[in-house]
Amino acid sequence: MAVNGSKKKKSGQGIPGPTNPMVTPMLTDQYQFTMAYTYWKAGKHQERAVFDLYFRKNPFGGEYTVFAGLEECVRFVANYKLNEEDIDYIKNNLSVSCEDGFLDYLRRIDCSDVEVYAIPEGSVVFPKVPLLRIEGPIAVVQLLETPFVNLINFASLVSTNAARHRFVAGKTKTLLEFGLRRAQGPDGGVGASKYSYIGGFDATSNVAAGMLFGIPLRGTHSHAFVSSFMNLDEIKDKSLRKKDGSSTCKDFVSLVQSWLRKIERSNSLHGNFAETNQSELAAFTSYALAFPHNFLALVDTYDVMRSGIPNFCAVALALSDLGYKAIGIRLDSGDLAYLSCEVRKLFCSIEKEFGLPGFGKMSITASNDLNEETLDALNKQGHEIDAYGIGTYLVTCYAQAALGVVFKLVEINNKPRIKISEAVSKVTIPCKKRIYRLYGKDGYALVDILTGENEPSPKVGERILCRHPFEESKRAYVVPRKVEELLRCYCAGSSDKKEEILPPLKDIRERCIKQLEQMRSDHMRRLNPTPYKVSVSAKLYDFIHFLWLNEAPVGELR
Amino acid sequence: MAVNGSKKKKSGQGIPGPTNPMVTPMLTDQYQFTMAYTYWKAGKHQERAVFDLYFRKNPFGGEYTVFAGLEECVRFVANYKLNEEDIDYIKNNLSVSCEDGFLDYLRRIDCSDVEVYAIPEGSVVFPKVPLLRIEGPIAVVQLLETPFVNLINFASLVSTNAARHRFVAGKTKTLLEFGLRRAQGPDGGVGASKYSYIGGFDATSNVAAGMLFGIPLRGTHSHAFVSSFMNLDEIKDKSLRKKDGSSTCKDFVSLVQSWLRKIERSNSLHGNFAETNQSELAAFTSYALAFPHNFLALVDTYDVMRSGIPNFCAVALALSDLGYKAIGIRLDSGDLAYLSCEVRKLFCSIEKEFGLPGFGKMSITASNDLNEETLDALNKQGHEIDAYGIGTYLVTCYAQAALGVVFKLVEINNKPRIKISEAVSKVTIPCKKRIYRLYGKDGYALVDILTGENEPSPKVGERILCRHPFEESKRAYVVPRKVEELLRCYCAGSSDKKEEILPPLKDIRERCIKQLEQMRSDHMRRLNPTPYKVSVSAKLYDFIHFLWLNEAPVGELR
Repeated sequence: MAVNGSKKKKSGQGIPGPTNPMVTPMLTDQYQFTMAYTYWKAGKHQERAVFDLYFRKNPFGGEYTVFAGLEECVRFVANYKLNEEDIDYIKNNLSVSCEDGFLDYLRRIDCSDVEVYAIPEGSVVFPKVPLLRIEGPIAVVQLLETPFVNLINFASLVSTNAARHRFVAGKTKTLLEFGLRRAQGPDGGVGASKYSYIGGFDATSNVAAGMLFGIPLRGTHSHAFVSSFMNLDEIKDKSLRKKDGSSTCKDFVSLVQSWLRKIERSNSLHGNFAETNQSELAAFTSYALAFPHNFLALVDTYDVMRSGIPNFCAVALALSDLGYKAIGIRLDSGDLAYLSCEVRKLFCSIEKEFGLPGFGKMSITASNDLNEETLDALNKQGHEIDAYGIGTYLVTCYAQAALGVVFKLVEINNKPRIKISEAVSKVTIPCKKRIYRLYGKDGYALVDILTGENEPSPKVGERILCRHPFEESKRAYVVPRKVEELLRCYCAGSSDKKEEILPPLKDIRERCIKQLEQMRSDHMRRLNPTPYKVSVSAKLYDFIHFLWLNEAPVGELR
Repeated sequence: MAVNGSKKKKSGQGIPGPTNPMVTPMLTDQYQFTMAYTYWKAGKHQERAVFDLYFRKNPFGGEYTVFAGLEECVRFVANYKLNEEDIDYIKNNLSVSCEDGFLDYLRRIDCSDVEVYAIPEGSVVFPKVPLLRIEGPIAVVQLLETPFVNLINFASLVSTNAARHRFVAGKTKTLLEFGLRRAQGPDGGVGASKYSYIGGFDATSNVAAGMLFGIPLRGTHSHAFVSSFMNLDEIKDKSLRKKDGSSTCKDFVSLVQSWLRKIERSNSLHGNFAETNQSELAAFTSYALAFPHNFLALVDTYDVMRSGIPNFCAVALALSDLGYKAIGIRLDSGDLAYLSCEVRKLFCSIEKEFGLPGFGKMSITASNDLNEETLDALNKQGHEIDAYGIGTYLVTCYAQAALGVVFKLVEINNKPRIKISEAVSKVTIPCKKRIYRLYGKDGYALVDILTGENEPSPKVGERILCRHPFEESKRAYVVPRKVEELLRCYCAGSSDKKEEILPPLKDIRERCIKQLEQMRSDHMRRLNPTPYKVSVSAKLYDFIHFLWLNEAPVGELR
């Protein structure tokens, strides 16, 4: 830590601050400051501590999690600094007995002596495995706990949720994140857009997220837009230039109307289009005049099959006359499976009737409170949907609104620490550790193994015993075909380690998609998935249990 | 709207921007911009539109909702302005055919011509009642939809969740919001702190929220803090000045140890304290040396009754010798009802044994995944808990992670609009409306009634017919003893209406607590609460159904 300017700041040069300017050293729990003060009072604040950040249980009843949020943590650490306003607030709110020396100490701290090791963002990860290992002066690392857990918790949760939606939807569908309005606050929305993209979504409706992260944007119009129009007389400028620029259609409105009449009169379409809604027709026509290159209409404001679809087709056919290809429609209510099939049939009939190749293949987007279950149900019913717009259930992680990420002390001054608990699942795995992923002969990951920092690493072709950390009888020999060390250095602190470069968002997304594809299918299935194994080395196993017995009081039944 | 500078900006003078700097005009859905462009292309962008913001169903299976988030909306509107970077991004991402004139238009817009009417923040509200009515040029108001819904949705949800937790906990308990680390992103945490406070919580652990909003802070220490100590030898500075400053105890550590021996030897305490954990004792002693005025210890790192409590008592008794009064303990695991009773008994025994008045009344705080159900269960079991620290379930609104707030067009160019739907619950109530809350003779609110803007208002002592908006047979005469108009003007736009002053957070909280107390208990109970009635005037009823029939296509069964 650059106290007294005695050490040159090395980490974080040129790394921008967190995306949300509200992520400052004050975004932490009060008890981090009371503890920091106590450490400082006791002269313990510079003691070197090692904390692990991990979760205990995969979310959504699944057996995998996508790790996300790392970049924001690194950006936070790289720019960690309290300002005078912060110090003033702490002075007035910590305690009447708070000494000025502590405030001076706070003024001087940064994270230049903090080391952060992490699994790369976008990786598939499992319970009990440290996603991050943070080493540094205990007072400083303690202050990082809350923001780190906050930044990882929701990010990993929503990436995982997105990955699960992708898994059910299938690779060929387009997935659109539409959740900003229902998200838990402004950056609940922005975060959801970013982390849904990492988890495999294709685009977002959130303009801020598009601008911040370069995520592709999607959006058409709302029901209010449709009902804000009265009739076609409202449209003043009716001209539309042909796509090839060769000439201009003077009255696009009449062209639309003539197509609507053709559709209505056609016997082969078997429609009942006698009274399509004129507000809707005016809205679609106006929208096409504004966006002839990407005309996509919401067709359920009045009645999908009797108004929305014929109105849409009339506009799409008129556009086609001028060389433009409409994109398709969005359904936001009703029986999506049934309606999508009916719409597809009609599109195909029009393709045939009017000799328009490709009209039948126009895109059908569905929205309206979709989630994993509804996607699964749609698949079972059969449908003709090409793209899903998913909001509330995705961005708020409605099925499970939080991931239980924890941040636990595993070593201080080179002495391993354990936190015991009556619930075995809450006992921590002590020591500064390394983590390896061992792969089998078919290329799939077999098991993650945690070892002490100084143990020899597992080697390809060499048999190694992998033990369940807490259950004596669960153990297996593995001969790995490939060994991957998972923790990499993202902040070197005052060590001379090489820091990883933060990859662009697209690379994180690609890593995630690739890792998910490489998972064995029994870990991925929605119903009764097989747990992926997380183990410890024989040496670490023995040490955990030695320490545990040492710390736990012997009970006495009375 | 101050297009061409022809109108002097009036609203929003001196109102600061939104708390989160990420809340900008870009925090909206892409389709708001595509619609704005289409309106502009069609020359419709200045048409005066009226939108209602409301929700359809109370959250958490209850029959009431606390309205929150208004201040952030007003701050957003008062500072609405796109910058050149925003314009550039829109230019490059909206459409190849986007005309420069539209970008010029975007450059010039602000909300000086937008009127915002709202129910005061902190009010108890009900489904279908407009919480906000927004009037202005359709293109601008449309752009506000997403941020408004985002800002109200989570705010109201979490305030309601907090109010529900308060209802179960009872008025006398202290409620602490401890959720930052598990919240959905950084300002999911900050927002949860603010809106939990409005809903009746007393304090937060979130330092940023304390600093931003003046919410009282609470916090002690973690399990990691306890296990970061090895033993009492670590404590170098053992001196502690008496509270009255009269002298200094040179060896506070020895004083603690001597008290621990007294506790251990006492027959009347019936304890089994032979081996309290020394890490824990060192941690507590250090904490007391740093915070002698507010010593509160987490006692469950090793074993509550056999280590944590005797260690705590030894330190508290030593502090007492020096004139300090310890605050109490926190339990974060185990059977909270049982442990709290055991702890209380021991505190009382110590009070008696050592003649220390007040020792038995020390505060017992409980945490560990608490929610409405666990609070209810604790009440049924009987317990001695004084304060609850509530995190995950409160701040993520785990029981229901989103409120379905919507934003619907009800009028354009003075023409009422309706959005029909096969689901009656989704049909909108058209027209620019007024809302009144009618009170009965016992002082309780009886019914909310929506009327057309120009209808005469309900009068005290005069009988008025209140009709269910959609169910013909549900109607009742009411003779109100008090009539309260709910919508007030927060942004006057270019009208000459008087704007409400934004009240301080404390006043919002007080309004909320008072309104909740004034609710009839059958609306508030957790099991099968009675729905509060929301009605429309006879005139509005007739108009809704006239418009509905007019817009809905007549079905044809084939």
